[in-house]
Amino acid sequence: MEPGRRDGRVSFQVDPRGYRHWQLTVDGPVATLAMNVDEQAGLRDGYELKLNSYDLGVDIELYDAVQRLRFEHPEVRTVVLTSAKEKVFSAGANIRMLAAAPHAWKVNFCKFTNETRNGIEDASAHSGQVYLAAVNGTASGGGYELALACDHIMLIDDRSSVVSLPELPLLGVLPGTGGLTRVTDKRHVRRDLADYFATRAEGVGGTKAAAWKLVDEAVPRPRWDETVAERAAELGSGSRRPAVAQGARGIALTPLDKRCEDDRIGYRYVTADLDRAAGTATITVAGPDAEAPADAAALHEAGAAFWTLAVTRELDDLILDLRTNELELGTWVIKTAGDAGRVLACDRLLAAHAGDWLVNEIVHYLKRTLKRLDVTSRSLIALIEPGSCFAGSLFELALAADRCYMLSGVFEEDGQDAAPAATVTLAEANLGPLPMGNGLTRLQTRFFGDDAALAAASEAAGRALDAGEAHELGLVTFAPDDIDWDDEVRIAVEERASFSPDALTGLEANYRFAGPETMETKIFGRLTAWQNWIFNRPNASGPDGALRRFGTGQRANFDRKRV
Amino acid sequence: MEPGRRDGRVSFQVDPRGYRHWQLTVDGPVATLAMNVDEQAGLRDGYELKLNSYDLGVDIELYDAVQRLRFEHPEVRTVVLTSAKEKVFSAGANIRMLAAAPHAWKVNFCKFTNETRNGIEDASAHSGQVYLAAVNGTASGGGYELALACDHIMLIDDRSSVVSLPELPLLGVLPGTGGLTRVTDKRHVRRDLADYFATRAEGVGGTKAAAWKLVDEAVPRPRWDETVAERAAELGSGSRRPAVAQGARGIALTPLDKRCEDDRIGYRYVTADLDRAAGTATITVAGPDAEAPADAAALHEAGAAFWTLAVTRELDDLILDLRTNELELGTWVIKTAGDAGRVLACDRLLAAHAGDWLVNEIVHYLKRTLKRLDVTSRSLIALIEPGSCFAGSLFELALAADRCYMLSGVFEEDGQDAAPAATVTLAEANLGPLPMGNGLTRLQTRFFGDDAALAAASEAAGRALDAGEAHELGLVTFAPDDIDWDDEVRIAVEERASFSPDALTGLEANYRFAGPETMETKIFGRLTAWQNWIFNRPNASGPDGALRRFGTGQRANFDRKRV
Repeated sequence: MEPGRRDGRVSFQVDPRGYRHWQLTVDGPVATLAMNVDEQAGLRDGYELKLNSYDLGVDIELYDAVQRLRFEHPEVRTVVLTSAKEKVFSAGANIRMLAAAPHAWKVNFCKFTNETRNGIEDASAHSGQVYLAAVNGTASGGGYELALACDHIMLIDDRSSVVSLPELPLLGVLPGTGGLTRVTDKRHVRRDLADYFATRAEGVGGTKAAAWKLVDEAVPRPRWDETVAERAAELGSGSRRPAVAQGARGIALTPLDKRCEDDRIGYRYVTADLDRAAGTATITVAGPDAEAPADAAALHEAGAAFWTLAVTRELDDLILDLRTNELELGTWVIKTAGDAGRVLACDRLLAAHAGDWLVNEIVHYLKRTLKRLDVTSRSLIALIEPGSCFAGSLFELALAADRCYMLSGVFEEDGQDAAPAATVTLAEANLGPLPMGNGLTRLQTRFFGDDAALAAASEAAGRALDAGEAHELGLVTFAPDDIDWDDEVRIAVEERASFSPDALTGLEANYRFAGPETMETKIFGRLTAWQNWIFNRPNASGPDGALRRFGTGQRANFDRKRV
Repeated sequence: MEPGRRDGRVSFQVDPRGYRHWQLTVDGPVATLAMNVDEQAGLRDGYELKLNSYDLGVDIELYDAVQRLRFEHPEVRTVVLTSAKEKVFSAGANIRMLAAAPHAWKVNFCKFTNETRNGIEDASAHSGQVYLAAVNGTASGGGYELALACDHIMLIDDRSSVVSLPELPLLGVLPGTGGLTRVTDKRHVRRDLADYFATRAEGVGGTKAAAWKLVDEAVPRPRWDETVAERAAELGSGSRRPAVAQGARGIALTPLDKRCEDDRIGYRYVTADLDRAAGTATITVAGPDAEAPADAAALHEAGAAFWTLAVTRELDDLILDLRTNELELGTWVIKTAGDAGRVLACDRLLAAHAGDWLVNEIVHYLKRTLKRLDVTSRSLIALIEPGSCFAGSLFELALAADRCYMLSGVFEEDGQDAAPAATVTLAEANLGPLPMGNGLTRLQTRFFGDDAALAAASEAAGRALDAGEAHELGLVTFAPDDIDWDDEVRIAVEERASFSPDALTGLEANYRFAGPETMETKIFGRLTAWQNWIFNRPNASGPDGALRRFGTGQRANFDRKRV
């Protein structure tokens, strides 16, 4: 049985009333998210989640809480991340779970947890909801990395609580959720001290942890509660979120209307048709089925039913579902269907009210969801056909794809009933608000180093471009006509399925991130790639490896050769 | 038998008179380096180097040629890299060699070939010796990647010659020498076209290759020779190298005086003591044994005997030797011995004559050698003891180390004979001329994000700092006194040897490159890390993997799960 598949597929849909591992309380502008992992409630059998160690199920709840705080609690300006247990903040990812998990599970688990921590940083940076780590006990490994994702780290100074990254000395692997990168690139810990720290299983506490910049301050227990409260108030003071007194009301992230069949996953706007023989999922995103709300008030009124938010939530869930539950569907074919004008109208509504807190949340959520697509280890092929609506925000799906085929003209066999030839439209949504992890828009990344091409494409924004124009501008890869379409697309998809899945993952992980790197892309590129390599090596995951031998009392038996 | 160990250790010392695979001709300002691989002269048995495919031995000669052109041929402004064979430029790395090689050999081979290609780009950028790829036949895989390292790529347009990256479709691995990164980040090929290109084993030729920016121009055969000559003249026209008429004389890179014993490798200035039981190599670099040359003329006269150049050549060879031949020596302990004043005098001489072509070459060579250290997968621990000379350029060795221990005071047991307490000296050499691959100095990388600490250290330049001052400024990690020294150093070294070698490699590959990434660091970080992962996966290297099955007529049998 795959881990997490207690009842079949892993589901990413949870609700605070059903949380097993977190306590979320909101007190005016300050929310407290307290980790209180239920040892017996692991996602699968075979391990106990002691000492606030976590598995995917714990992190799914964390992700849900972070999302709900942004949408359902406009008044919250500071989130205090802490532990509800005595003497321990979090022991990080559960080792027995990791040791028993297949390689793909480990990699997927780390990817999701990384995305959630990046999302925490995104909230601090863009949502006016700043995260404060109140580390009230020892934080080890992934526990410390969770604190690292917060904007400010307070460590209780009680002669026993420490922060540590014991992965290397104890498990023979790396910290898997951005720890190495954040220690040097975010917290500016000197690399030689960072090296010492990461080899010291017993960690560093108190004033030394603060002097080395591993934490921002070490606070004695008697002053702990009051200092946490002070910092929470300070951190939230600059927030542009509506004050409690303004009475802004959050919107409810209502349950998704999701229908799962054996070969199909359907939501209101998004569907995925699964072809296991071919190894493909064909994802179709429908445009709005009504006119855009008239104004910001109407958008608030619509809440989770507003098309952009609804479609983003569905895509987000689908990406996670397919990634986790359908490993052998290596190619995702991406289509859209609907009215481009309505897509653009929703985009314009969002652009016109960029200062509105809810609008801000929707745009950043779409941004994060598209980033999730960028780091997904599946080949992405966009097909632009008559009846599609690749415009503005939805055109980002085509720009995220590894290749894009656009039909030139119509499907002749449809005769007089043939839908008109497809067009694509670049718009404001493609020119700034939805950057990739590398800090560039997908359009800038596409034309990296070719300013003339970027300018030409940008100047075409607002016009519906036919296949010839889109191809000329470099917005689509190929633009075959009806005669060649079926063969060309079929060959591309079949060929993709014939290649080494591992080599495709590596190819895409390189090509998708042309140009500059950021802390975020370094975490997914440099750090994760090395971790994946290490996870795959006998020194970690072999029967005598450190990960497998942890807790057995036996030392690992290493192949000493340096590679 | 390890590959390449025909007669024991792999040697990186070659001489043009002994080249088996390259023809180097110099005609005034234009040199031609023609690849003409001897099929039967592989470094090991078991494969034939057909179609100008290469193994480590071929690349060792290439590296030697690139180095000699810079030092021995000041008059050369353009190097035409071409093939002496009909219809084929180069088929890239030899597949049978790769398929049979152990993982560590593959990784080391790719690292060295990457360094050589980066060195080609360094010559074009900093030496005034611009590389022109005259691709006069098909260039596949590593063959095309060799062209990508050149500043200008000409492809013969003869209806059969193409460039290609067939690694993914044919071998289930990635191009291993920077191909993916250079295609997008250097040549600005659009990522979707790059994707198509890298899945198309048959490659792209003629005007399409030029239109997609895979090459700079496609030139019909009748105009080939004259166009190559024209471009060679154009590319060299801006060079600051001395013109032929000025009669500048190169210096001979005379054979290194190297003595190998079972537990010791010795050169004139550098020695390495090998402790196989402990898994360490203790590298001691001696300072100059005489005063620095009086002026630039005397430096030219000294040639390869000039201390900085001599010590750089020795270090370069030692790094390559230990990397390739001593995989189980996982920790390199780095020491220096000598007169810091003399080290600084050599540095000053170089700084004072930065416009001199030979001085320029020496400084860039030292820079490249230190970069080689940065990407070496060994733990580096610097020990600063009485009698050492960690000053200026030699202090870069301490800054390159993962940790640095400096004795506070003297070794008391030496009594009245005790050497005075060690000092370290920052100088101009640490503040700019020797950047790392990430574009920052080692000092900037060390203090990344902490401008105050960087300023404080920089302001201390020129002063001999004792252990207390150096520790206070953050220039050394720990400064134990005589009482603690032995234990602290012993524990650090012993502990290092007890950790997973793979996890250490990953840790160091992350920590050493804090801050920004460049094309060069992306090649060693993102691309190489993914490639190492893929090399380690059964889909490539297992008995049914694509790399092993290549040429057998059997298709690879892939595990279809995406990771």
